[in-house]
Formats: sequence, structure tokens, C-alpha cells
Amino acid sequence: MNRFWSKIISGISPYVPGEQPRDKKYIKLNTNENPYPPSPKVLEAIRDETSADVRLYPDPDAIALKDAIARFYQVDRSEVFVGNGSDEVLAFCFPAFFNPGDTVSFPDVTYSFFPVYSRLFGVEYETVRVAGDFSIPFDDFRSGVRGILVPNPNAPTGIAADTGEIEKLLKKLPDTLVIVDEAYVDFGACSCVPLVHKYDNLLVVQTFSKSRSLAGLRVGFAIGNKGLTEALERVKNSFNSYTIDRVAQKAAEAAIEDREYFLRTAARIMDTREYTAKELERLGFVVLPSKANFLFASHKNISAEELFIRLRQEGILVRHFKDPRIDNWLRITIGTDDDMTLLIEKLKAMMV
Amino acid sequence: MNRFWSKIISGISPYVPGEQPRDKKYIKLNTNENPYPPSPKVLEAIRDETSADVRLYPDPDAIALKDAIARFYQVDRSEVFVGNGSDEVLAFCFPAFFNPGDTVSFPDVTYSFFPVYSRLFGVEYETVRVAGDFSIPFDDFRSGVRGILVPNPNAPTGIAADTGEIEKLLKKLPDTLVIVDEAYVDFGACSCVPLVHKYDNLLVVQTFSKSRSLAGLRVGFAIGNKGLTEALERVKNSFNSYTIDRVAQKAAEAAIEDREYFLRTAARIMDTREYTAKELERLGFVVLPSKANFLFASHKNISAEELFIRLRQEGILVRHFKDPRIDNWLRITIGTDDDMTLLIEKLKAMMV
Repeated sequence: MNRFWSKIISGISPYVPGEQPRDKKYIKLNTNENPYPPSPKVLEAIRDETSADVRLYPDPDAIALKDAIARFYQVDRSEVFVGNGSDEVLAFCFPAFFNPGDTVSFPDVTYSFFPVYSRLFGVEYETVRVAGDFSIPFDDFRSGVRGILVPNPNAPTGIAADTGEIEKLLKKLPDTLVIVDEAYVDFGACSCVPLVHKYDNLLVVQTFSKSRSLAGLRVGFAIGNKGLTEALERVKNSFNSYTIDRVAQKAAEAAIEDREYFLRTAARIMDTREYTAKELERLGFVVLPSKANFLFASHKNISAEELFIRLRQEGILVRHFKDPRIDNWLRITIGTDDDMTLLIEKLKAMMV
Repeated sequence: MNRFWSKIISGISPYVPGEQPRDKKYIKLNTNENPYPPSPKVLEAIRDETSADVRLYPDPDAIALKDAIARFYQVDRSEVFVGNGSDEVLAFCFPAFFNPGDTVSFPDVTYSFFPVYSRLFGVEYETVRVAGDFSIPFDDFRSGVRGILVPNPNAPTGIAADTGEIEKLLKKLPDTLVIVDEAYVDFGACSCVPLVHKYDNLLVVQTFSKSRSLAGLRVGFAIGNKGLTEALERVKNSFNSYTIDRVAQKAAEAAIEDREYFLRTAARIMDTREYTAKELERLGFVVLPSKANFLFASHKNISAEELFIRLRQEGILVRHFKDPRIDNWLRITIGTDDDMTLLIEKLKAMMV
């Protein structure tokens, strides 16, 4: 650090994303990317957008993209906010809704970016302890906090809550904003989007990075009532007028319009997930019931850290978090069938 | 507003960018875009990057792009920070270097995003009054402020300061961070980049949106000593791990590598600027001496607002700010020779 650093930056521990290695080709099962390319229509849209027009600013309001999202989710354009990845959308939620010194709440085992956002924006946080089976005890969220953040399915466990549980929470705490991060919802969980017209304290955040194979182009969005999206627009317009570039806007629009491709690839990933879970269990893993494009698994005899290191040596990257409570677990992204067969083979060899 | 809005967002007036109209085709001289397309190598790079790999996250550290920038400016990679447009880079400077309640200083006539950033991050600001000729009186910046923000050339005047003046300021206030926004520096002004090795209180911010014709892809950067760029990395990694998408990284890399194209198009814009300035003066405009890709001009007899409205009716968009001191001025982006000839013709018709 040096004398120009702010106090907040001097004291913060930034989020560490899964590694993007450059040393050799790995089978990447560490950052929950989609193993399938985006719809061919997406690549076509990018090629069509590649013109002299990149000299011009993109539409700062991303109207065409918002309209496409609104059509898909049957909401109004004014209920949609878009950002440079759902991480940016989540980050914007803090200055939009929380004051420095306010308290927000989230599960103790969850997306590890939440405490980092809190520190960056000077917001206090408290955690609700997930149960022994890693399910979130929604009843434990208390009134008096300014906001609740909860991924559904939760990360990195993959466990999905029933939307009925979230609805109960929305009813019980009408003055607390509940932000549901649905990054992984398309792999078998139920979305809370249909509840946004019923509860003005609900904001749903989603991403194009997982189920729509666009991690490389950075597009995320939020759906909620107009008052909430307007607050996000105000933050965006006080931060960066043009957050999503021309190519990304067009690509995301094409992605959300190809419903058939989206459903087909998501179904394929779910099939592969179920097969992989069974195989892992046969090898002596405890595997949490996942509705995401990853599995969270712990082996009875071999430590997660050892497996992580040995898999890396074999050219397979998975994610290992050193946080207490989950340091003996691996988060394994669902790849293609071939990727997962190879993973199982390599693990089998380690079991002998 | 509603009960979930934060105090800051309830009280803020977001920045308003120049309009990006959708109703009809205009000659856009209102947002300082480059009239020329990016280098053909940029479009080629985008096409090459359009592959199944968009399913994968981009390099969060944008190493290849940083290396290309470092080579061009003869600095070390560790002295380069990149962001989603220079607006994001400038926004990140606030939590990186300024604490809530600190005071920063900038000219009273300058980039109108500065006060908005200040309010968003709870930072106080004071202004230094530009002279009657709109030059910045650098001697008026006082010690005791945490940071100074100054565009060079200044916006929206286009007036460039001598780097000697900025160096004097860096020497005089060694404990104040001076952020020089060089968005328009490539159109005839001198860059402060060579000073970053001499002064650890200097951060230079630049963009690919103007001189490199990439407004549509959102890439900006900062150059400064490692301590400063590290603070920015910490903010970025506490906000959004992947701020620049795959396509934008590749495009910007190709843009900065085509030095010859860059110099040629910048020279062309400067020629057009000089021709346009002379023509405007012949029509009775006062035109400030510009080193940017725009002119700031005021007519002796016809109000800026009237000219703005009448030009819009004629299909030409320019920028008119309603701020005191500059509300009788127009900011006119330099387009192609044809664009400017048409502008002059239309204005001439309004003078009779």
C-alpha cells in the first residue's frame, strides 16, 4: 500500500476468481462456464455487429436487449436492468440500496463476493448459518437488516430452495430488500421472477455467463419493480454511462431469443450432472443435491485439497475454497460428457 | 424514489451523456466519437475472436492488452490498469484513493462527470475557477485536498495545458494525487505519461473511445506507478473480476498495435479541426484554441441554444450544456470533411 490508498482499499481482501491458466490447456471445471458454445445465432450476431460502427458509443440504455429480456420473462422493459456481468449488477445494488453503516445479511456459506462488496461500500454484514446439510434456514433471517442476499441455487453448494420459502421471507420482512442471485437457476431450479409483480421488496439477478454460454462477453441483468431498477439506473448513470458494449448487447439479445438452443443445452448439462453425481457417489464421494451447473462433493477418505492438487497435475481444474466449513469440498463444474468421463477415470485411478 | 433507495441515490443527479438518437439518422457531432472506423486490423481481430470461446471468461487481468499498452507507452505492465471505458477507470479512482468526507478539487468548467462521481462516493469537492479565456489557473489548486482531477485537454473547452504547468503542480503538492484525464490528448496535446516515473502522485487516464475509434467497445486505461495501479486493481477485484470482455480486449490490443493508422487518422482529424475553426470564425463564432477532437464555439449574435435546436432540425447533433458560464457555447465534434462542410453550410444559412 502507499500513502494515496483510501482506508477501505487498504483494509480489503478482494475476491479471487477461479484461475484462468495460461501455462497449458486444462479441462476447465473451475469457473462454472458452459461447456457448449453459445447458439450459432449469437456468433452470427457478433459477426454482423463487427463493422465501422464500433467507433460509435453503444446504446447507453440497451433498449433492444432489455426488450428481449422483458419478452422472455414476461415483464415490462422498465422492470429490467442490465449490467457488465451480474457481478456489476450485484455491486451496483450496494450504493443503490444500502447506506454506509447499514447491515445486510446472507448465508455463511455462499458466494464469496458478498462480503467483499459489503466492505467496498462500507456496509456491515451478518451471516445466517446454513444447516448441516448446507440448506439455508430462511426462518433465521431477521427483520431490521436493510437487505438480504441469497443465491438460489446457492453457491458453491448448488442446493436450490423452494420459491415458497423465499416468498415466505418476502412476506415476513416487507421492508427488507431481498436480492435473489439466480446465476444458476436455469439448471433445474425455480425462478422468483414471477414474484416480482407481487413483492416490491424482491430483486432477481441473473447472468448470461452460465446457461447462455456468454461468460466471455459480460452481460448480467436484474428484474424487479420499476422503483428498484430505477435506483440501479441512477447508480449506473453516476458511474459509467455505457456499461455494455455494442457486441455484447447484440450477442446477448440473440442468445435470449434462441429459446430452443438454451433449453436443449441446459437439459444436456443437467443429464451430465446426474450421471456425474452417481459416478462420484460410487467412488465414495458425498455429493450435495445440485440444481446448478456444478456439483459440490467431498470424499470420505481423501482430502479435497489433495484431490484438487492431483487433478490439477492431471490437467483438470476444479475449484477448492479454503474457507472453514467447506475446505474439504470441491466444486466441480459440469463439462461435456467426455470431460466428466475423464474426470471420473482420473479420480478412479486416485482411489486405488 | 421508494423506501429501498439509499440516501446517496435519492439525492444524486446522474450524468447525462450526449443523446444517441434512434428516431432518424443524424450527423453525430455530439459525443466526440471518431468519424473514422477503427483500423482494419481491429475488425479482423474481432472476427478472429468470434468463436465458441466466448463461452469462457476473459482474462481477468487482461495481460495481453496491458502488455500492448505498456509497449506503446514504454512503461511496465504493472504500471498499466485497464477498465470498461475510462469512465469506469475514473469511477474506480474514487474508492481507491479518496475516503468519504475527503475533498477533491477540479476546474469549475470541466468534465461534468467529476461532481457526480464525488457524490456517488461521498467525497466532497471544490472547484478552481477557470480564467476568462477558459484556461485553467494551475496555481490556484491548493494543498490540503486529497486529489486533483484535471482533463488535459480540458473538456468541454478543448484547451490544452502545457505539461510544464502540470509538472509544477506535481512538485508543489507532492502529497496530493493528481489525476490527469487525457481522453483527448492524441489530437495535438502533450501527454504526461513520461512523468509517471518521476512523480508518484501522478495518474494518467486515457481511452480507446476517441483517437482509437473504439467507443462502441468500452476500453480505457490508467498509467501510473505500481502503487497507484495496485489500488485500482483492488477496487476492480472487489467490484467485478472481469470488467473487459474477450472481444474488447482483442480489439483494443489490435488498435494500439496499429500505430501508423492511429497517427494518420488523428492527423486527419486535426486538419479538419483547423479548417472548421477558421470557417466558424468567418461566420462570426468565437472558437477556443482546441487540441481535442472537438471545438468549443460561441456565436456573437445567435444563442447557442437556438443554434443547437436549429442544427438538430437540420439533422446535425452537437452538444449544448446548460451549465452557467458555458450555456452560450456549443461543443462540436470533428467529423469527416464532408460532415463539417455540411455543418458550415447549414450554419451559413442560419446567419442570413
